[in-house]
Amino acid sequence: MTVAAGTPAGQASLRRHNMALVLRRIAEAGPISRAGVASQVGLTKATVSSLVEDLLEAGLLAEQAPRAQQRAGRPGTDLVLNSRGPAAVGVEVNVDYMAACVVDLAGTVRVNRLERADGRAISAEETLLRAGRLAGACATAARRRGLRPAALTLAVPGIVAEGRVVNAPNLRWSDQPVAEALSAGLGRRPLPISVDNEANLAALAELWHGHGRELSGFLYVSGEIGIGAGLIVDGELFRGATGFAGELGHMCADAAGPRCACGARGCLECWAGQEALLAAAGLDTARGTRLGAEESPITELARRAEAADRAALAALERAGRALGTVLASAVNLLDPGAIVLGGSYADLAPWIAPPAQEELAGRVTAGRWRPEALRTSELGAGAAVHGAASAGVRALLSDPLAAM
Amino acid sequence: MTVAAGTPAGQASLRRHNMALVLRRIAEAGPISRAGVASQVGLTKATVSSLVEDLLEAGLLAEQAPRAQQRAGRPGTDLVLNSRGPAAVGVEVNVDYMAACVVDLAGTVRVNRLERADGRAISAEETLLRAGRLAGACATAARRRGLRPAALTLAVPGIVAEGRVVNAPNLRWSDQPVAEALSAGLGRRPLPISVDNEANLAALAELWHGHGRELSGFLYVSGEIGIGAGLIVDGELFRGATGFAGELGHMCADAAGPRCACGARGCLECWAGQEALLAAAGLDTARGTRLGAEESPITELARRAEAADRAALAALERAGRALGTVLASAVNLLDPGAIVLGGSYADLAPWIAPPAQEELAGRVTAGRWRPEALRTSELGAGAAVHGAASAGVRALLSDPLAAM
Repeated sequence: MTVAAGTPAGQASLRRHNMALVLRRIAEAGPISRAGVASQVGLTKATVSSLVEDLLEAGLLAEQAPRAQQRAGRPGTDLVLNSRGPAAVGVEVNVDYMAACVVDLAGTVRVNRLERADGRAISAEETLLRAGRLAGACATAARRRGLRPAALTLAVPGIVAEGRVVNAPNLRWSDQPVAEALSAGLGRRPLPISVDNEANLAALAELWHGHGRELSGFLYVSGEIGIGAGLIVDGELFRGATGFAGELGHMCADAAGPRCACGARGCLECWAGQEALLAAAGLDTARGTRLGAEESPITELARRAEAADRAALAALERAGRALGTVLASAVNLLDPGAIVLGGSYADLAPWIAPPAQEELAGRVTAGRWRPEALRTSELGAGAAVHGAASAGVRALLSDPLAAM
Repeated sequence: MTVAAGTPAGQASLRRHNMALVLRRIAEAGPISRAGVASQVGLTKATVSSLVEDLLEAGLLAEQAPRAQQRAGRPGTDLVLNSRGPAAVGVEVNVDYMAACVVDLAGTVRVNRLERADGRAISAEETLLRAGRLAGACATAARRRGLRPAALTLAVPGIVAEGRVVNAPNLRWSDQPVAEALSAGLGRRPLPISVDNEANLAALAELWHGHGRELSGFLYVSGEIGIGAGLIVDGELFRGATGFAGELGHMCADAAGPRCACGARGCLECWAGQEALLAAAGLDTARGTRLGAEESPITELARRAEAADRAALAALERAGRALGTVLASAVNLLDPGAIVLGGSYADLAPWIAPPAQEELAGRVTAGRWRPEALRTSELGAGAAVHGAASAGVRALLSDPLAAM
């Protein structure tokens, strides 16, 4: 709990704090008895029992059958997060696919669907309607498994503010509201809707389900058609003053470089963005010409690099150098602790990471760069939608009173 | 107060929180009565009176003579921060000068001294001994004014960790402990010693005494012989994972540029660092040759620029472009809300800011750059030492129990 600096800490905020504390302990240590929770969090058994009653009633916790008695006294009943309780839906709209999933309170993905769709070929409203239908189908499937979907989070490759997509250039969206069209797709069972940037949500997924298990801070890089980043600091996402932080793709890699689609010269995306990379490798970026419609062009690029195709290797080497130059600047400015390469960079790391490492070693101040601080995401392409659903679950767990 | 997420909030931490709350309210709104404090912070009068007694006893507060009676009942006695109470000493070691000051609880600079000294010409120990003597002289002067110096903070142009200067290339210090030599200089009245980076402390001074009065977040740029930065987020200094954040001078302005002293190519300091700037303007950077020993070469550079000297104008234009390119990358990555140009850049802003603005306008993504977000510090060269002393005062105010 953070008690706001300008207010006194009172009983209501203490109860809120302690309820989240108990729930988090059970999430981390369950199955666990009430007495076990009390001793681990430092509250009295009576306080814990009272908080647990409320959490059971709200369906956030479940009791397990009594264990075999090991000591004198009444046998303990263990507590776990309710796997048939509230759940959260994530849905991702990206340039050439959409995906949805449902995550339960324990963080397990219970339903997961993906649909190919070119977000540039249809209107934003139509895209959102289809995304809403996909999310609705996942929510229905989750209800059949006894879950109660309680929130929906949308992930988009763009800048988001106040529930709108301010700018998603690769989708060609600008100042686009999302809730109405998504809700229309969801149908008769509406959900509260949030929206966030896909790199932010993928970074959070990495924090909760990937390298974050060992690292409390890192810069997550999402290499897709655009290049986004999510900065994790002390286990929290850093959003910047107006929520626009993370535009790594438009950091300058070479001030005299070619003109970027954004209007500036020499942005990182001019070498390391997916379209520049494919073009430099001599791959047709239009889908369906040389590649099967269901296959990502990144898979083909990796195949060519494996076959030592000179154009592919040169393109990846140049992308890696540009990426390393920009990441070294980010490390000098931010000292993020570690960097995680995600999105398509996870698949391309064997070719992109070595030149990036060279630039980092040569450019990070005072020889402070440790090569092991550059890592590859284990989550792959599903990171953003997983993060979207998990964000909803985290919100339920961190403020259980709001879920009641 | 932030109650640590893993601990229950108890009575002791509540009292600590509420004491700091009362003290902060009096700092912001004093002179103010006990009843006024109680109504403004939302605590009972009895609680406030009890907290105030402890704060009076510890010398953090003082009472003012009763005001003229305006209403029925006992006249109120107003509370203020004690201007004869605990105080904090700041001392700055920089490349060509050292400075010290004492700040009282109300944030007023009560003693202030500056001494010219070339930190490169004498050993680190000798420099620290002299800095300790300067700080000790300020502390003695403060005691004569009835203050009780209770802490000392040292500002250095380098990377700091665990009370040591890890690396201060412009001072030629490396892995340098500071406390022993500083304490020897202080003499018979030792003080607890902290040490921090000068750009960090200057950024905090800007937060507490400069543009921070309107802005809760900004990137402060300290343009000296080195170029440092301090990032303020939500009224707090961002330090990075290992405390090394802010090496703005070694962000890359041109990957193919000249070799920097750090070993990399094209760092911002190659164009916008003080020595590169003076050399490009045709100014001798060795002191005492063309300039009076007491005059900063930046003053001479500004004089030549005012006289439309072509070399000076070209050097400043190039420095401004490199600075703008790097700052645009920082804005794209961090969305800091605003940028404050400090140190020598404050004096050079008439020539450096316009080309920097052009680069920012052309390079910040999605046309989000607002020219009014680039500001010039009002604090000038004294920012770091002022910040050092103020940091000590803030520590006293935010945890008054520790000062008792």
